Amino acid sequence: MSDRSSPGAALLAGPRELGELARELRVDSVRAADAAGSGHPTSSLSAADLMAVLLGRYLRYDFDNPGRPGNDHLIFSKGHATPLLYAMYRAVGAVTDEELMTFRQAGSRLEGHPTPRLPWVDFATGSLGQGLPLGAGLAWTTRRLEDGPARVWVLSGDGETAEGSVWEAAEFAGYHRLDNLTLIVDVNRLGQRGPTRHGWDLDAYATRFNAFGWHTRTVDGHDTAAIDDAYADAMDTNGRPTVIIARTLKGKGVPEVENREGAHGKPVPHADLAIAALGGEPQDRVGAHPRPPIDAAPPRRTSHADAAAPTFEVGGSLATRKAFGEALAALGTARGDIVALDGEVGDSTGLQAFADRHPERFLECYIAEQQLIASAVALQTRGWVPFASTFAAFLTRAHDFLRMATIGRADLCVVGSHAGTSIGQDGPSQMGLEDLAMFRALHGSTVLYPCDANQTAKLVGALAAGSGIRYLRTTRGATPVIYGPDEQFPVGGSKLLRGGSDDRATVVAAGITVHEAVTAADALADRGIPVRVLDLYSVKPVDADALREAAEVTGCLISVEDHHPEGGLGDAVAEAFADVDPAAPARPMPRLVRLAVRHMPASASPEAQLRAARIDAKAIEAAVLGTLGEGA
Amino acid sequence: MSDRSSPGAALLAGPRELGELARELRVDSVRAADAAGSGHPTSSLSAADLMAVLLGRYLRYDFDNPGRPGNDHLIFSKGHATPLLYAMYRAVGAVTDEELMTFRQAGSRLEGHPTPRLPWVDFATGSLGQGLPLGAGLAWTTRRLEDGPARVWVLSGDGETAEGSVWEAAEFAGYHRLDNLTLIVDVNRLGQRGPTRHGWDLDAYATRFNAFGWHTRTVDGHDTAAIDDAYADAMDTNGRPTVIIARTLKGKGVPEVENREGAHGKPVPHADLAIAALGGEPQDRVGAHPRPPIDAAPPRRTSHADAAAPTFEVGGSLATRKAFGEALAALGTARGDIVALDGEVGDSTGLQAFADRHPERFLECYIAEQQLIASAVALQTRGWVPFASTFAAFLTRAHDFLRMATIGRADLCVVGSHAGTSIGQDGPSQMGLEDLAMFRALHGSTVLYPCDANQTAKLVGALAAGSGIRYLRTTRGATPVIYGPDEQFPVGGSKLLRGGSDDRATVVAAGITVHEAVTAADALADRGIPVRVLDLYSVKPVDADALREAAEVTGCLISVEDHHPEGGLGDAVAEAFADVDPAAPARPMPRLVRLAVRHMPASASPEAQLRAARIDAKAIEAAVLGTLGEGA
Repeated sequence: MSDRSSPGAALLAGPRELGELARELRVDSVRAADAAGSGHPTSSLSAADLMAVLLGRYLRYDFDNPGRPGNDHLIFSKGHATPLLYAMYRAVGAVTDEELMTFRQAGSRLEGHPTPRLPWVDFATGSLGQGLPLGAGLAWTTRRLEDGPARVWVLSGDGETAEGSVWEAAEFAGYHRLDNLTLIVDVNRLGQRGPTRHGWDLDAYATRFNAFGWHTRTVDGHDTAAIDDAYADAMDTNGRPTVIIARTLKGKGVPEVENREGAHGKPVPHADLAIAALGGEPQDRVGAHPRPPIDAAPPRRTSHADAAAPTFEVGGSLATRKAFGEALAALGTARGDIVALDGEVGDSTGLQAFADRHPERFLECYIAEQQLIASAVALQTRGWVPFASTFAAFLTRAHDFLRMATIGRADLCVVGSHAGTSIGQDGPSQMGLEDLAMFRALHGSTVLYPCDANQTAKLVGALAAGSGIRYLRTTRGATPVIYGPDEQFPVGGSKLLRGGSDDRATVVAAGITVHEAVTAADALADRGIPVRVLDLYSVKPVDADALREAAEVTGCLISVEDHHPEGGLGDAVAEAFADVDPAAPARPMPRLVRLAVRHMPASASPEAQLRAARIDAKAIEAAVLGTLGEGA
Repeated sequence: MSDRSSPGAALLAGPRELGELARELRVDSVRAADAAGSGHPTSSLSAADLMAVLLGRYLRYDFDNPGRPGNDHLIFSKGHATPLLYAMYRAVGAVTDEELMTFRQAGSRLEGHPTPRLPWVDFATGSLGQGLPLGAGLAWTTRRLEDGPARVWVLSGDGETAEGSVWEAAEFAGYHRLDNLTLIVDVNRLGQRGPTRHGWDLDAYATRFNAFGWHTRTVDGHDTAAIDDAYADAMDTNGRPTVIIARTLKGKGVPEVENREGAHGKPVPHADLAIAALGGEPQDRVGAHPRPPIDAAPPRRTSHADAAAPTFEVGGSLATRKAFGEALAALGTARGDIVALDGEVGDSTGLQAFADRHPERFLECYIAEQQLIASAVALQTRGWVPFASTFAAFLTRAHDFLRMATIGRADLCVVGSHAGTSIGQDGPSQMGLEDLAMFRALHGSTVLYPCDANQTAKLVGALAAGSGIRYLRTTRGATPVIYGPDEQFPVGGSKLLRGGSDDRATVVAAGITVHEAVTAADALADRGIPVRVLDLYSVKPVDADALREAAEVTGCLISVEDHHPEGGLGDAVAEAFADVDPAAPARPMPRLVRLAVRHMPASASPEAQLRAARIDAKAIEAAVLGTLGEGA
């Protein structure tokens, strides 16, 4: 399946062509940034020889068919080196010279940093230190999950190895012995502000990667023969990923900027002189003609569409985290494209049920949340439907990976357990109290927050069917099963749990607070005060219609959430009463009251936590009475 | 100043006492978790011998005076091992046995995970992988900034070394040759869900730390003599931090749980049997009597209170990121307690001005945002006022460290540059579009967003004078200087830039959109439509009074922000119209219209970006006209 044993058999370009290709890449890098008036040509010039050899002799890629399963993957972790990346696309004929000159212009898909708007780009990069985690996840997917022939090549800067995420990935790739992964570190010695920590100390990098189980090669990054030898070595290496650590000059080939500080992130001062120094504009271009991919079938995904989702008896009691686990395990039977990823807390998040049922589609990422999300993002590029899960609180570790995933148009499901103060004794370090704010602010996200087991099971199915980043928030403690197994919970909907035409107030709740709200409403009903209860399980998109109708009937809405007051349910409710379209007809605005976690919790029982935060049934009851101007 | 050369000279406890102390720590760990009905005794039992030797013979600490500058620092990175930590406090007499039995109860300061509510705790821990970054920052502070004698001891679990943050810190500590830092890794082989990646392969850990420049020791973590020898070795080691990698048994000493899976995070099943197996309840306790700290003067901080903040001429033009840099450099002269921390983008964030002026109080953290924030959190525990800065977008990398800092009651300033789409051609990977949401949701935070240079300078001073996490958001491009240097900008305030009693609408803006709003208002005024413009530079706390007054006068508010629609300015405005206190008198609600970045931006000029996001002057003008039902 792999051709690792004979890397040289079909090598294409010779030394002269490689030198000329590198020159073309350099000239085009200078030209593109010059046309744009911005960009990073010097960071491109340092890596041009490395990429020329890769493109000319090793990369297996059908640029006409980016979806071919056997295609290699090339990831520019140093995403700012887009002049080089786009020059490569121009060299293979995927991009015309005319389009290359639209670099960084409004409307051009040749953005300042790469995004999957280009069909040959798998991931958005530009936040440094993400390419290797993504590449490691992809190498695991192609090799371990799909048993496919594709290789993964990651071009990284030197400065970005300071990111911890790089070492999460180094550990992951070494542990899984991903010999289909090659990292190329362009050690040009100069970061944005000044010299990097290790300068040209190539051994500093080699020692570190070696310690994490990698095969390491150091090389002169401007010697095409030496680079060729290093790639061949990487192809020949079994059982270990390879890192090629290349000594390069930033701005190589352009005397005005070569190896100089202060030349980062700007066009070279005199493009004409630079191009002359590089040997002038190429005439009869050699270009590049990458090797075709090895034929590979799409991955096998065995589904049993008739496999039923679990149902739970009304009146019973189960934690939504456990219902999630059971529902996902069942969904994994129904859909062969589901993959579950754990942050070494699967026994707590519910994910263990999936691991037990589908061990071949379960990936333990250990306590490394950046690699957890990176692996999920990698999986979805190859058509898998990943569910990544850990405590809601610890998902904040992966915030930047989630942010970049939205730029990368990634489709993935994320599940955060142990949300809110109601976890109890463990205290605030384990409480997700900012997660709704984080996920709501992600572009194109969906945020769901179930309150019972049947609702959870339904929303797990909805999650799998969605697009963008879909977040499910689960609760640690057992909660009553209040919905029948046949109830439907569309994304963007809500459920009216208590209500009539004479309701005097509306309590808007989600998750754990739904049960507190129902208790409060029933107590108030006993006192002759009818109160509406809305289960706002879809926090984003929010059910604006139901909220507006409740506002019309009851005049006031009281939101109650196990989350800090900013960015969560209260803000979502308020959003329903703000207009995006200023020309929309004005409407009466309700009174809004917000109950949320306004203090810093400590240890206490779950009940005491809700009480201390004033989001329990008693507090809701008091808030309704206060709002209505009636005494308790 | 240091006693590193004679570690044995004043050693206190002998082998018998150490063994007995370890036994007392184990029994108390079992008792505390048993009384609580929850907690992590097994993770405490594995490390009891390690901590007994540290407490009995090496830790220099005056428990009666936790503020003594020469006190060592002990950080439980495995924060769940609080039964052990609190048993140590009980052993030294800092906590009574009665208090120990309040573990995890409501009202007790002995929380499930440690927080600085206890005077001997520097940091909140419990999110794994944070202790070493915090400890490394502290070791740098005491050694490099203060030239003090304190040593830093970090107790870590084995599983948490999977966190990238650990390797950011390993690199940081190795690079700075922090030989006053000792990391103790309790390799008990068992994580929460199951075995760790490396099990008892101590060399796997040693090889990795060694590669990062550390002195490494492997040891039997239950052999007190061997542990003693390892600590002495750490004290003797110059020019490198030391890691002691200890092979231990989870649950050591309690047969029912020792070295067993499934015993994480719960009391031992039979406390009485466990205590009997441990030799019974201690009678004549040996306790512990730590060595006193080496006398040390508080750090020297030379201030020149008369040093003036910079002022800028009205009508000029300057980027707020540059004004920030100049203001902070001046503040660094006025206040000797200011320290600036950079994520290798100081030339872009403005921080370079501080680095040039105060190199001795400038810390380059390179591209490692977790270590950046951890170092800032460390600095503030010793009375410094840290300003940590990078691009707003990349601060998301440190979200979990920021979250934990709030639990740790940390006081620090964070500055995020390159906010919003207005950065232009670089594209979305470099745009902070979620940062307001992230910082607003942090408990006790302050969020400020200036629009001009003089306002920035004033807010930098306000930032330094505040408490909790204070965030300043700056803009890449130059903006007009519209405020005079004597204007005041109190936290929680706002500025009325255009307005009168006949205003027909209010535009609420901040930062870059203030200038767009003013342009729009002036164009509308020319058409006979008077519009109020509110500069809401204090996003949190928000100026509810000004917003409500504007609502009363104009009936509608149009918020416009260079941020995604969730969690930012629009939500802050809405918050002003929601009640925390339900008994507050109801008030008329205005119509709210929100302009925000609702699409995924690409590359374009700054002007084109604002136009594409529909947050430029033209869009504001149209929104006002639409809201008023008037044609454009």
